[in-house]
Amino acid sequence: MNKATLLELLAAVERGELSPAAASDRLANLPFEDLGHTRVDHHRTLRTGLPEVIYAAGKSPAQTTEIFSRMAATGADVLATRADQFTAEAVLAAVPSAVYHPQARAITLHQSAPAEPGGHVAVVCAGTSDLPIAEEAAVTAELFHTRVTRLYDVGVAGIHRLFAVREQLASTDAVIVCAGMEGALPSVVGGLVGVPVIAVPTSVGYGASFSGAAALLGMLNSCSPNVTVVNIDNGFGAAYTATLIARMAHHD
Amino acid sequence: MNKATLLELLAAVERGELSPAAASDRLANLPFEDLGHTRVDHHRTLRTGLPEVIYAAGKSPAQTTEIFSRMAATGADVLATRADQFTAEAVLAAVPSAVYHPQARAITLHQSAPAEPGGHVAVVCAGTSDLPIAEEAAVTAELFHTRVTRLYDVGVAGIHRLFAVREQLASTDAVIVCAGMEGALPSVVGGLVGVPVIAVPTSVGYGASFSGAAALLGMLNSCSPNVTVVNIDNGFGAAYTATLIARMAHHD
Amino acid sequence: MNKATLLELLAAVERGELSPAAASDRLANLPFEDLGHTRVDHHRTLRTGLPEVIYAAGKSPAQTTEIFSRMAATGADVLATRADQFTAEAVLAAVPSAVYHPQARAITLHQSAPAEPGGHVAVVCAGTSDLPIAEEAAVTAELFHTRVTRLYDVGVAGIHRLFAVREQLASTDAVIVCAGMEGALPSVVGGLVGVPVIAVPTSVGYGASFSGAAALLGMLNSCSPNVTVVNIDNGFGAAYTATLIARMAHHD
Amino acid sequence: MNKATLLELLAAVERGELSPAAASDRLANLPFEDLGHTRVDHHRTLRTGLPEVIYAAGKSPAQTTEIFSRMAATGADVLATRADQFTAEAVLAAVPSAVYHPQARAITLHQSAPAEPGGHVAVVCAGTSDLPIAEEAAVTAELFHTRVTRLYDVGVAGIHRLFAVREQLASTDAVIVCAGMEGALPSVVGGLVGVPVIAVPTSVGYGASFSGAAALLGMLNSCSPNVTVVNIDNGFGAAYTATLIARMAHHD
Amino acid sequence: MNKATLLELLAAVERGELSPAAASDRLANLPFEDLGHTRVDHHRTLRTGLPEVIYAAGKSPAQTTEIFSRMAATGADVLATRADQFTAEAVLAAVPSAVYHPQARAITLHQSAPAEPGGHVAVVCAGTSDLPIAEEAAVTAELFHTRVTRLYDVGVAGIHRLFAVREQLASTDAVIVCAGMEGALPSVVGGLVGVPVIAVPTSVGYGASFSGAAALLGMLNSCSPNVTVVNIDNGFGAAYTATLIARMAHHD
Amino acid sequence: MNKATLLELLAAVERGELSPAAASDRLANLPFEDLGHTRVDHHRTLRTGLPEVIYAAGKSPAQTTEIFSRMAATGADVLATRADQFTAEAVLAAVPSAVYHPQARAITLHQSAPAEPGGHVAVVCAGTSDLPIAEEAAVTAELFHTRVTRLYDVGVAGIHRLFAVREQLASTDAVIVCAGMEGALPSVVGGLVGVPVIAVPTSVGYGASFSGAAALLGMLNSCSPNVTVVNIDNGFGAAYTATLIARMAHHD
Amino acid sequence: MNKATLLELLAAVERGELSPAAASDRLANLPFEDLGHTRVDHHRTLRTGLPEVIYAAGKSPAQTTEIFSRMAATGADVLATRADQFTAEAVLAAVPSAVYHPQARAITLHQSAPAEPGGHVAVVCAGTSDLPIAEEAAVTAELFHTRVTRLYDVGVAGIHRLFAVREQLASTDAVIVCAGMEGALPSVVGGLVGVPVIAVPTSVGYGASFSGAAALLGMLNSCSPNVTVVNIDNGFGAAYTATLIARMAHHD
Amino acid sequence: MNKATLLELLAAVERGELSPAAASDRLANLPFEDLGHTRVDHHRTLRTGLPEVIYAAGKSPAQTTEIFSRMAATGADVLATRADQFTAEAVLAAVPSAVYHPQARAITLHQSAPAEPGGHVAVVCAGTSDLPIAEEAAVTAELFHTRVTRLYDVGVAGIHRLFAVREQLASTDAVIVCAGMEGALPSVVGGLVGVPVIAVPTSVGYGASFSGAAALLGMLNSCSPNVTVVNIDNGFGAAYTATLIARMAHHD
Repeated sequence: MNKATLLELLAAVERGELSPAAASDRLANLPFEDLGHTRVDHHRTLRTGLPEVIYAAGKSPAQTTEIFSRMAATGADVLATRADQFTAEAVLAAVPSAVYHPQARAITLHQSAPAEPGGHVAVVCAGTSDLPIAEEAAVTAELFHTRVTRLYDVGVAGIHRLFAVREQLASTDAVIVCAGMEGALPSVVGGLVGVPVIAVPTSVGYGASFSGAAALLGMLNSCSPNVTVVNIDNGFGAAYTATLIARMAHHD
Repeated sequence: MNKATLLELLAAVERGELSPAAASDRLANLPFEDLGHTRVDHHRTLRTGLPEVIYAAGKSPAQTTEIFSRMAATGADVLATRADQFTAEAVLAAVPSAVYHPQARAITLHQSAPAEPGGHVAVVCAGTSDLPIAEEAAVTAELFHTRVTRLYDVGVAGIHRLFAVREQLASTDAVIVCAGMEGALPSVVGGLVGVPVIAVPTSVGYGASFSGAAALLGMLNSCSPNVTVVNIDNGFGAAYTATLIARMAHHD
Repeated sequence: MNKATLLELLAAVERGELSPAAASDRLANLPFEDLGHTRVDHHRTLRTGLPEVIYAAGKSPAQTTEIFSRMAATGADVLATRADQFTAEAVLAAVPSAVYHPQARAITLHQSAPAEPGGHVAVVCAGTSDLPIAEEAAVTAELFHTRVTRLYDVGVAGIHRLFAVREQLASTDAVIVCAGMEGALPSVVGGLVGVPVIAVPTSVGYGASFSGAAALLGMLNSCSPNVTVVNIDNGFGAAYTATLIARMAHHD
Repeated sequence: MNKATLLELLAAVERGELSPAAASDRLANLPFEDLGHTRVDHHRTLRTGLPEVIYAAGKSPAQTTEIFSRMAATGADVLATRADQFTAEAVLAAVPSAVYHPQARAITLHQSAPAEPGGHVAVVCAGTSDLPIAEEAAVTAELFHTRVTRLYDVGVAGIHRLFAVREQLASTDAVIVCAGMEGALPSVVGGLVGVPVIAVPTSVGYGASFSGAAALLGMLNSCSPNVTVVNIDNGFGAAYTATLIARMAHHD
Repeated sequence: MNKATLLELLAAVERGELSPAAASDRLANLPFEDLGHTRVDHHRTLRTGLPEVIYAAGKSPAQTTEIFSRMAATGADVLATRADQFTAEAVLAAVPSAVYHPQARAITLHQSAPAEPGGHVAVVCAGTSDLPIAEEAAVTAELFHTRVTRLYDVGVAGIHRLFAVREQLASTDAVIVCAGMEGALPSVVGGLVGVPVIAVPTSVGYGASFSGAAALLGMLNSCSPNVTVVNIDNGFGAAYTATLIARMAHHD
Repeated sequence: MNKATLLELLAAVERGELSPAAASDRLANLPFEDLGHTRVDHHRTLRTGLPEVIYAAGKSPAQTTEIFSRMAATGADVLATRADQFTAEAVLAAVPSAVYHPQARAITLHQSAPAEPGGHVAVVCAGTSDLPIAEEAAVTAELFHTRVTRLYDVGVAGIHRLFAVREQLASTDAVIVCAGMEGALPSVVGGLVGVPVIAVPTSVGYGASFSGAAALLGMLNSCSPNVTVVNIDNGFGAAYTATLIARMAHHD
Repeated sequence: MNKATLLELLAAVERGELSPAAASDRLANLPFEDLGHTRVDHHRTLRTGLPEVIYAAGKSPAQTTEIFSRMAATGADVLATRADQFTAEAVLAAVPSAVYHPQARAITLHQSAPAEPGGHVAVVCAGTSDLPIAEEAAVTAELFHTRVTRLYDVGVAGIHRLFAVREQLASTDAVIVCAGMEGALPSVVGGLVGVPVIAVPTSVGYGASFSGAAALLGMLNSCSPNVTVVNIDNGFGAAYTATLIARMAHHD
Repeated sequence: MNKATLLELLAAVERGELSPAAASDRLANLPFEDLGHTRVDHHRTLRTGLPEVIYAAGKSPAQTTEIFSRMAATGADVLATRADQFTAEAVLAAVPSAVYHPQARAITLHQSAPAEPGGHVAVVCAGTSDLPIAEEAAVTAELFHTRVTRLYDVGVAGIHRLFAVREQLASTDAVIVCAGMEGALPSVVGGLVGVPVIAVPTSVGYGASFSGAAALLGMLNSCSPNVTVVNIDNGFGAAYTATLIARMAHHD
C-alpha cells in the first residue's frame, strides 16, 4: 500500500462506501511496513545524508561497476570500499568522473553540491602499514564533507611525536585512531583529547597479533573512557560515526 | 493507537470531520506497532500455543515467584527453568499447584485443558551427568502436551545399547540428544533415524571439554545431515523446537 | 548372511539337519549386521527418500564425475555441493541431463517422478554476500521436492523490509535463515514466525567475524527458542532438516 | 618546575644573572612535563568537565570510602562503579549526601551546580538481565548532567516493541544499547536512528555466550555503520562517550 | 531375546510349529542387540578384565556410595575417581574394605584374586603440584594389577634429575608423564625411552597456562613420535591404556 | 671423551701418573655426555629399530633428496612424509628403489631384511577425505614391518558398517582411527575393542571444524578410556606408537 | 655416586685392585648425573646466587611452612610467593625473622650477608590494581640484593606522568612494567629507555581482558624491540631476569 | 622551536625586550616536544647505538629499496628483515655493498667502524625448520657487533645433544632459543645456564601448533625463571634485547 492507495481507502470511507469498521480491519491487516516504506526504508540515510556504500571485496569488477553506475545515475555521492585496481578500472571506464584512491582502495564519486565541511576529524596512525585503513577512513570522511587532518607519523614507541601534534588533535571534533600490533595508540590519544576517540584495530602484525585480534582486545580494554571500537580494518565505519559526531558539533 | 482509537479516527473521516489526506498523514505517522500490538506482540506465542518461560537463573526467589504468580493468574501454563530448591520452595508456597522437578531444576504449572499429545519426541542421553539437561527438555516438552520417551541409558562407547532402542527411536517425530564430552551421540542417532535430531551439547566433562565447547563443536560438524544444534545446556530450546516439529506431524 | 542364507539355515533346522542348539550358535556368532544390512544400511535414506549427496570440495573433477555418474546410473536424484566450474563441466559432459547452479555451486540431477512438493520452506538472507549459501539451501530443498520461497532482500539494519515479507514467512512450514557478520537475523525472524527456524551462519565478513564464528555464536545464543543452528556455510544441512520438517506438515 | 620557579629563572636572565645560553640549557633539560603539568595533567577532565571515577571492584570498602571522601572534599561530583552493598554502606556513612543505586551498583555524589542537561541519550536494553549494565550507563550519564531516556523493554525477538519506541529514539543525540546473548539489538537500533549508537555487550547468557564474547563479536560485526563498541559490561564507558557526543549537539 | 528364547524359537522350527520363513521374519526384526547382549555389552570389560570406574565428581556422596556398593557386591574390583573426603567417608562406612587414597582422590576395592602384575609402568611428574593426577594414574594402574614405579622428582628445568632415573624408565613397558605449565616433560622422556609414552597434561599453572591448555598443546606437538596424549588431568585414562600396553608385553 | 681416552686416563691412574684426586676432577668436569654418547644418542632408535623419518613439508625437493640419499646409503629403511609429486620425482631419480605412495604422500625405501610382521594394527577411517592421513599411517606401519588391516568404509552416521568389521578389529593389537569433522569414530571403536585405540584428528571439514580442532577436542574428551590422541593429521605418529604396542604383543 | 665414592674407586685403580677396563665399565654405566650432581644440580642457583622460591598457591599453610623452615635452616635467603595471610602467620610462627609483605603476598627471609646492590631496576605500573604484581616483583628483586625504584603512578592515558619519571627510568639497568587491561605501557616505556624492558601482563580488567590475555597479546606485539614478556601475573619471573641483567651491568 | 629560537627568546629577555612573565607564557605554551626533539626523538637509538630496522614484509621491493638507500646514505648500519629474493636483488642493485642472507631473509649493510664485539650470545634451535628465525636473530646480533655462537643441532627429544654444548652455553651473556612445535627447549636451556634466556616461538609445526601459538604458550609457562618471551617468529626482537644484555656484561 502506498500513499495513493491509502488515500483512496480513506476517500472510500469519506464517501461512505467503506464503513470505519471495515477500513479498520483492512488497515489492521495491511502490511503496515508498506505504509511506512518511504519513511522507514532509508530512515538512516535520509536523516544523516550519508550515502550507502558498496563493499567491493568479494564482488566481481562487473558487479561493482553495475551497482556503482546505478547509484551514480541517481545523482548521489557514491563510495566503493575494498576495491582493487581491476575493479577501479572497470568502474572508472563506466563512470569517468569517479576517482580511485589506490592506498585507500576506495572509489569515490562526488556529485553533491559543494558544502562547508560539517565538522573536523583527525585520522591518526603510526606508520606505513596502517595507511590503507587510515586512508579508507580519511577518504570516506572527506566524501561525507568532513574536514580531515591526517596525522600519520605517530606511534607509542616514539611518544614525543604524538605530543608534537597535540594541538592539532585538540582542535578536532572526533579522532579516529588506526593501530595494529599492540593497539595501544587509542588509549594514549584518548588521554590527550576531550573528544570521542574511535579506535580501528588493523590486521597489521604477525604471530601473536592473530590478524588484528590483539589490537582489538587492547582497544576494548582501553583505560581511556572516551574510546569506542569498531571491527578490525573497518576504516569506513569509523569515518561514518566520526562524521555523525563532527556534524553534531557544527549544526546550528 | 488501539482499535478503539482507530475506529474513532475512521468514524471522523466517515463523518467528514477529517479529510482523507489528514487521516492519511496521521496514519502514516502513528506508531503503527501499537496498531498491530495484539497481532504482533504475542505472535509466536499465539501461533504455537507454547507459553513463554521464566529463566530463573540470576533471579532471586522473590523475583521468580512474583513473575510466576502473575503468569499463573492468567490461567496459562507456566514454566520456570534453572530453578534451585530455594526458588522452588518460594514459588510453591505462592502457587501450591505448581510442581517442582528437582532433577530438571524446573517448576511447572499445568492449567490448560487436558489434550491429546500433539506429537511424540524421544529424549536421549548417555548417562547420569547429562540428566539435568535431558530432564529439562523432557519436562518442557511434556508441559507442551508432547509425549516423551526417555532413553537415558545409551552412549557411543557402548553402541549396542543404542541399537536396542532403535525401534523406539523410529516411532518418534523428533529426537533430542543431550551429550557432553565428545558430543558424538547425535551423529550416531542421526544415522539411525529419519526424523530431525536436535542436539544439545552439555557442559558435562572436564579439561579439554571447555565447559561444553568440545561437544558443541562436535555436533556442529556432525556428518548426519538431519542434526541441528542449540546452545550448550539449552534443553528448553531443544524441547521447544522439537514440540513444534512433532505437532506438525500430528496436525490434521 | 542375507535372507536367502538365513532361510536355508532355518530350513535345515526344519529338516532336522541342524539342531536348534547348533543353529543358535551360528546365529549368535554370525555378523548380525549382515542380517540387518538391507534394513539398516540405508535406513535414513530409505525412510526419508532423500538422496545422499556428493561433497565436491577437495575432490578432483574426475572423482566427482565418477561418483556422480555411478549414482545417476541407479536412477536416483543426485546432488553435488561445493562444485566449481571445472567440476560442473566434467560432470555435465558425462551426465548431460544434470544441471549446474553456479551461484549455489551445486549440480543437480532430477530423475525421480514429478511429485507434489512435500512442504514449503522459506530461505531468507540479507544480501548478495550470503547468496551462495542461501542458494545451496534453496537448490537442495527443491531437488528434495520442497517448495521454496526465496526472501533475499532483508536484513536487521533495515528491519522494515523483513516486516514486509512477514506474511510470506507465516505461510511456510520452516524457515532457513542464512546470515554472516553479526548473525542477528534468525533471532528477529524467530520472533515473527511460529515454525522452526534453522539458522545457517555464513563465513561472510572480515576481521572479528573470524570466518563465521561470530555469526555462529550469535545464533547459538538466540533469544528466540524456535531457532536451531547448523555449521557455518552448511546450506545443504539446513535444507535437509527443513525438508524433513516440511514433509511432516504435509503427510497424510 | 612550576610557574614560580620558571618566572624566577626568567627574572634571573632579565637581571643578567643567568646567560641565555645557560638558561637554554636548563630549560632544555628540565623535566618539561612539570612545566606543562597543570595544562596536561587533567587535560581530558578539564576539557570535558567529566569527573574521574572510582572502579570499586577489587577495592575494599575502606579503600573506596577513602578515595571517595577525598574526591568529595574537593567539591567535585564523584562516581564509584561496581560497588556492592557493603561498600555503599561504608561510603554513605562517611559521605551522607552520596546516593547508592543498587541496580546500577553505583554510588554518586552530586555537588556541581544544577545545570541544564547538556544533551539527551537513550539507554536501550532487552530485559531484566541487562539492567545492571543499563543502569550503570544511565546513572553515569545523569551524573554528567545528561538527560536519559530509559527504554528497557525491547528485544530483537519481539521487534515490534522496538518500533513502538522509534520516535523516542529519534529525538536523542546518541543511543546506548546494552545486550547480551546474541548481541543483535544494536544493529537493529542502528538501522532505525541517524545518531551514533554505542553498543555495550553484556555478560548475560550461558554456554556459548562465553561470558559476553558472543555478544561482543556480534556487535563488532554490526552491519549498521553507526555502531561502535565498548568492553563487555562497560556501561560507564558507553555513558562517558555518549555524554561527550550529546554535549556537542547542544553546545552554543 | 536371550539364548533361551532363541533356542525355543529354533526348537519350534525343528518341531515344525514355525516355518523357516516366519522364523526368518522374526529373527530379522528382533532387536538383534539383545541377541548379542552378553557378547557385546561388556565386550571391552570382558576382554581386558579392567573394571568400569565411578567418576565421583558431580555425584553426591550418597550416589557414589550406592553405585560403589552395588559394584562391590558383584565381587569385582571397584574404583572411584575424583572422590573427596566426604565421599570417601560415606563409601568406607558402607564398604569397610575399601581404601581411600587422599592424594589421588581415589577409592579402591581389591577383591580379585592376587595375581602377578601384568606389566610395569612408570609414572613420571615434576613435582608436588602434579601429584594428584600422577597418583590417580598410579593407584588406577595398581588396582589393575600393574606394577608401578613412581618417579616424581624430575622436571625439564633440572634435566639431570631425569637422567638419573633413565635406567628405571628403560625397564618399563610404558611411561605415563604428567606435566602442567609448559608440558615439556613428555617430549624429553619420549627421547629417552623406546616404549610408548602417554602424556597427561595437568591443569597446574596460572595465567597463560589456561587451565592446562598450554600443556595440552605442547604435548600434542611433541617432536617425540612415541608420545600420545589424553585429556587434561585424565590420570585414569592414561593408566587404563598404559595397563593395556603393559599387559601385551607380558602375555604368554 | 670416548672409551679409548677414558681407558687411557684410568691407565694413567693405574700407573701412578695421575692421582685419584686429579682424575676425579677431570672426570667430574669432562663433558659426560660424550661418555654416554653412543648409548644415549640413538637410544630410542636403537631400542625400537624404527628409523627416523624425513618430514618433507617445508623442505625443497633437493633438500629432501639429499637427506633421503644419505640415509639410504647407510642401508637403513627410509621414510619421507608429506612429500609432494615433485619431491617424489627428485627422490626416486636419486634412489630408484624407493617407492612413492601418492595418496599417503609418502616415500619409502625398504632395505632391511624381510621379517615376520611384529604385530597387527587396523587403520580405520570413514571415507575418502581422511584417506591421505589413514594411508600415511598405514604406509608408515608397513615400513615398520607391521601388518596393517585397512578399514576405510566405516563412519558413525552409518554405524552398522562398523559392526560389520568388528571381528576384524578384534584380532588386532592396536587400532588407529582417523576422523575429521566431529571426530566421534574413536569413541565408538574404543567401545568395541579391548586394545589401545590411537585417535588421529584430521583437518577434514569446514566452518566450525576449525581445521581439525573440533575433531581433536572430541577425541580428547572420549568416553572410551582406551583412546589416546595425537596431533591433527599426524598419521605417522599414530603408526609409530601403534607399532611399538603391536610389537610388544608379539615379542617372545 | 658422590665425590667420596669416586675417589674410592680411583684409589682402587691406583692400588691396582681395579683394572682400568673394569673401572671404565663402572664409570660408563654409573648414573653419570650423580657424578655431576653438585655441579649440575644447582647449576643455575650456584651461578646466579639467586635462591629457589616456594610457590605457595595451592599449598597448605603447613606445607609451605615446612618447606620454608627447611630452606631457612640452610642459612639461605628464602622467598615464598602467592602466600595469603594464613600461610604468612604459620610461616612467621615457625620462622620469626621472616617478613610478610601483604601487598606482594610474599614472605621473605634475609639471611645472606649484607651486600652492595648488584644493580638497579625500576618497577613501573599504572595504579592500585596492578600493585600486588608490581610489589611481588619489587620484593623479589630486593631479596636478590637489587636496588628497586618503584614508579607506580604512571599510565598510558595520562602519559605526561610517565614523562615526569623519564630521568628516573634512564638511570636503571632494566625496567619491569606491570600492566593489565590493554597492556600498552611497556611499549611506551620501551620507547623512552635504552635498557631491556620486561613486560608483566596482569590479570587486571574485566570482560574482554580475558583474565590478562588481552594485555599479554598487546605486549607480545609491542613495537618497541627492547620488550620481552613473561607469563600473566608473573612478577617473580620478571624480577628474576631483571636481576640477572642488572647484575651484569655492575659486575667487575 | 629549536635551540636557536630558544636562545633568541632568552636573549630577548636578557635585553629586556621580553618580560619574564611574557616569556614564561610563551614557554608554557610552546610545543615543548619540539624543544626536546633531539633529545627525545632518537632517545633509544642514541643510547643503544642500535639502528632502526626495515620490516620488509608487506613492502614492495621498490619501497624497501628506497628506505634502505636513504638510511644507507646517512652512513649508518642498515638492516632489513623478512626480505625475499626479489627485494634483495632490488636493494643490492641500489646499495651494492649490502649483503643478503637468504636463510635469514635479511639484508644487512655494515658501515660502522669495526669494533670489539660488545658481548656474546648463543642462538639455539632444534633443527632445519627453525633456521630462518634463528638466522634472523644471529644476523641481527652480528650486525649489532655482538659475537654469536650458533648451536643449531639440539632438541628436547635428543636431550644429550644439548648437554654436549652446555659449556658453550655457559660462556655466553645471553641465550636466544628458537623453537616451534611444543616449545620446550627454552625451559631446558634455562635450567642449564645462569644468564637470561630469550625464547622465540616459531610458527613451525602443523595442526595443533596453531601457527606457533602452542610454542608461545609453552614458553610463557616455562618453569625456568630466567626465560622471557618475544612474539612468534620475532628473531629480530630477541637479538635486539640479547644485544642490550650482552653489552651490559662487557661495558667498562
